[in-house]
Amino acid sequence: MDAPRSTTASTETDGAQIRRLIDGWAKSIRAKDIDGSVFGYAPDVLTFDLVNPLQNVGVDAVRRRLEDWFSSFDGPIDFENHDLKITAGDGIAFSHSLNHVRATTKQGQEIDMFWRATACFRKLGEHWTVTHTHASVPFDMESSQASLDLKP
Amino acid sequence: MDAPRSTTASTETDGAQIRRLIDGWAKSIRAKDIDGSVFGYAPDVLTFDLVNPLQNVGVDAVRRRLEDWFSSFDGPIDFENHDLKITAGDGIAFSHSLNHVRATTKQGQEIDMFWRATACFRKLGEHWTVTHTHASVPFDMESSQASLDLKP
Repeated sequence: MDAPRSTTASTETDGAQIRRLIDGWAKSIRAKDIDGSVFGYAPDVLTFDLVNPLQNVGVDAVRRRLEDWFSSFDGPIDFENHDLKITAGDGIAFSHSLNHVRATTKQGQEIDMFWRATACFRKLGEHWTVTHTHASVPFDMESSQASLDLKP
Repeated sequence: MDAPRSTTASTETDGAQIRRLIDGWAKSIRAKDIDGSVFGYAPDVLTFDLVNPLQNVGVDAVRRRLEDWFSSFDGPIDFENHDLKITAGDGIAFSHSLNHVRATTKQGQEIDMFWRATACFRKLGEHWTVTHTHASVPFDMESSQASLDLKP
């Protein structure tokens, strides 16, 4: 693990520690690095993901999903958190952002997609840990199709 | 506002205060009561809703959405929070649940649907305030259809 990913620096504010965690995930996603993409996840994290099923429990489910997702792309993944806002208190924190991915699938389809991301954190000892994430796109009420092409 | 909805009782724990807020929303949704359904919402709440657009800012957008939603049903709305978990600390809290609605639309369609709900709170003075909500269903990767019939 890179030294800058450590969340123990006592001189850092909680908000800055969480921002570095989230920046680290983005960097790891761009590098298709699964370990880095789940750094700080609780073993029993509850995830509401973009795609079925309704919910997943455990970091292994997140890892399997990332494996599938990373392997679906040919070439680089361009990934950024937009409008990231972090609210951190004494031992509890949450963040929300609009996540933007641009990449080309192995079938040659160009993906340029935003989704909504919420992450919820607890500080266990000196480390911020993610206990819940929620990622989604809304759907179109008329067609019931997921809205994969909305821009902020 | 009903007296039991007050969140100022100093003998109540933070978790209990938030649970009462969430129980109050469920009760208000069943009663198609818009004021009660947004009780405790921050004026500038950021909502990621089930349906388009990608995001909304402000409680007025939540009210308009509830008006549309309530008026789409003929007769009662049966609504419950399942698997509600609240994590509350000193001034910051979050919750997640699977929300279940059963109702009949004015077109005669029977709705029996679960969605994922995350709510994020800040305590301002003695009152817990909702500053962010995220509600969604996942989509099916093959069809890109929103999954409106998943059960936990």
